[in-house]
Amino acid sequence: GETTRIAVTPGDGIGPEVVGEAVRCLETLRAKHGLALEWTRFPWPSHAWHEEHGESMPADALTQLQAYDAILLGALGDPGPADDPERYLLSDSISLAPLLDMRKGFDQWVCERPARLLPGARQYLADERAKDIDMLVIRENSEGEYVGQGGRLRKGLPDEVATQMEVFTRKATDRIIRYGFEQARSRATDRVKAGRTRSFRTLDGRTCESQVCLVTKRNALRYWGDMYTEAFEEISQEFPDVATHHELVDAACMKFVQSPWAFDVVVASNLQGDILTDLAAVLSGGMGVAPSCNLNPTDPQMPSMFEPTHGSAPDIAGQGLADPTAMLFTTARMLEWLGRKDPTLAAAGKELFDAVSADLAENAGTQRGTHEIGSAICKRLAP
Amino acid sequence: GETTRIAVTPGDGIGPEVVGEAVRCLETLRAKHGLALEWTRFPWPSHAWHEEHGESMPADALTQLQAYDAILLGALGDPGPADDPERYLLSDSISLAPLLDMRKGFDQWVCERPARLLPGARQYLADERAKDIDMLVIRENSEGEYVGQGGRLRKGLPDEVATQMEVFTRKATDRIIRYGFEQARSRATDRVKAGRTRSFRTLDGRTCESQVCLVTKRNALRYWGDMYTEAFEEISQEFPDVATHHELVDAACMKFVQSPWAFDVVVASNLQGDILTDLAAVLSGGMGVAPSCNLNPTDPQMPSMFEPTHGSAPDIAGQGLADPTAMLFTTARMLEWLGRKDPTLAAAGKELFDAVSADLAENAGTQRGTHEIGSAICKRLAP
Ligand SMILES: CC(C)[C@H](C(=O)O)[C@@H](O)C(=O)O
Ligand SMILES: CC(C)[C@H](C(=O)O)[C@@H](O)C(=O)O
Repeated sequence: GETTRIAVTPGDGIGPEVVGEAVRCLETLRAKHGLALEWTRFPWPSHAWHEEHGESMPADALTQLQAYDAILLGALGDPGPADDPERYLLSDSISLAPLLDMRKGFDQWVCERPARLLPGARQYLADERAKDIDMLVIRENSEGEYVGQGGRLRKGLPDEVATQMEVFTRKATDRIIRYGFEQARSRATDRVKAGRTRSFRTLDGRTCESQVCLVTKRNALRYWGDMYTEAFEEISQEFPDVATHHELVDAACMKFVQSPWAFDVVVASNLQGDILTDLAAVLSGGMGVAPSCNLNPTDPQMPSMFEPTHGSAPDIAGQGLADPTAMLFTTARMLEWLGRKDPTLAAAGKELFDAVSADLAENAGTQRGTHEIGSAICKRLAP
Repeated sequence: GETTRIAVTPGDGIGPEVVGEAVRCLETLRAKHGLALEWTRFPWPSHAWHEEHGESMPADALTQLQAYDAILLGALGDPGPADDPERYLLSDSISLAPLLDMRKGFDQWVCERPARLLPGARQYLADERAKDIDMLVIRENSEGEYVGQGGRLRKGLPDEVATQMEVFTRKATDRIIRYGFEQARSRATDRVKAGRTRSFRTLDGRTCESQVCLVTKRNALRYWGDMYTEAFEEISQEFPDVATHHELVDAACMKFVQSPWAFDVVVASNLQGDILTDLAAVLSGGMGVAPSCNLNPTDPQMPSMFEPTHGSAPDIAGQGLADPTAMLFTTARMLEWLGRKDPTLAAAGKELFDAVSADLAENAGTQRGTHEIGSAICKRLAP
């Protein structure tokens, strides 16, 4: 088969540290299974590159990256000196831009973030049912609140007016909702295969193996809220085997804390999905373990991007303290994704997921450094 | 002194039930202390009124209500028959509109929702420090994401585009941020008086008795995010005794679950505040106990509105099951607010708050009906 090529972009802060462990795991797996896998490291996007070149990445960055099958990103964002608020605010905005540029440039219209409380992960909720959490939050990743349209009239003056436009298209709405239903269906199939079942009730009293919950704020943000709701009702007809549910974003956040085990697949807009996925990360045990990916499931010419949910954590950067677990789960998800073309990669992804899970379960509560955790997992993977 | 007049609007669902208990408590307090307090009940806004008159409230509703010193609202929102999705969606939007009409019509530009885990309230977080939660979330309540501007181009067609405009003014931004700092300062004063202290660090290493955390999503929603940030930096100069802090909304939600005891006053936009206050309600023990108010602190001609954070809970309406605690805390807050003009009302508000708190503490975990809880509290208040 063909060689699969990954662009590795360590980024800022703890990014290079956790990416280092991911690459070690990839090396171990490649050596063990003779995987047809290659990777190239890029010093950009990053704050350091920006300091030197006046831009976070080269002008042709997207063209360069497009030659790869996937992008494995550490973390972006350098807040600059904390004692200089002006620079702090400026540099933060600069260094995060490439993230949104890649999502848009490669039309990575799905952001997928699972929440499961794996054994060994920190449980923030008091209720024991937190152990049953098993949801997938699917965030619309291409438009909506993130289109960046708007401006500041009379900037800095007492009568200033700032606007920000939210733009939603029915096409992008349809595709993310349909993707949600497809995921619900395939999750149900996987569960049944694994001998686990769940049951969700439809409005007309039937019982289904899976559910999609649509989140909007349609009682206040009417226009796209109504469009989302109509698209959801329509597309749900194609999936009579999947139960449907609606939540308003405020209530959804509340229920993520009060009864998260009741959710299966959750579909939300870009900003509301951003918020819900951070909550989902907490439900999984926190940023130290939460994987994330930005997918383009429709265009094989466009690389998808894999990054942990966490940021660059400048406060602990360079100290070998960052937990690489989230990055390694992310890497496992990347291999699984790439495995759609090369099944040996899917198998390696599964192996990595199992090794990281086992490491987590066995080391609950112990204090270990970045490299120590990476080494323990590489050891599990070694032939 | 003059008589203080309250417009009581029970609303939909469990609204009338919990308002019934609030009125009983008000009667008890009035009789006991000879309070100069009167109230009038209105059958609107409500879904029932809408069914009969084709509108949720009369055309001159705001004019009628403006004659009162405060509005005590039960809950709004009737989802209609759950088995008829079309009607469900329609009726929900209709019946909630008056809430936003009142907030806008009376320029109730502050929405204040405290979070404290009082003894007896349900603790959702595993960490014992949840007992130390003591924050006040202040939501901008007059503009931003809720301006209702936007539309649907090619409605219902495959190429539909829905837009929603967010509009923020520097004036409304300044006033809500300044209000936040003032609250932080007065909370610190109250704490010190009560012999309790907290300590927050400023960026330049000083220690303060209070903190304001500004929440935005300025790394994605730049225009108003930057304006908010600039206003915050500027106004903070007037309050050197108050420490400042920034969070992005996604991280803020996460930290509300991971370490909510670290927050003091939190200031957020209309939508982000909506989300954060629902989370704050959970931190306080859930919707059963969470008070809320919509204040106009600047114009004495405009009544403020007091409503619990919870909705109309149609699933348990009419069964005497709703917990009136949130409504009674809300009523206590109303009396405290009205006490700015009449100190006997402030004292009554304090008395009600103490009675509701004591009832909560003594009855943790017991199953009681709406009326039973109301009666127990009235009994505590009785002379
Ligand atoms: C860094 C920021 C722009 C980004 C987002 O809001 O999408 C981040 O929070 C995320 O969730 O990936
Ligand atoms: C009913 C709804 C429009 C309202 C809001 O979003 O403001 C509610 O959620 C609230 O928090 O008071």
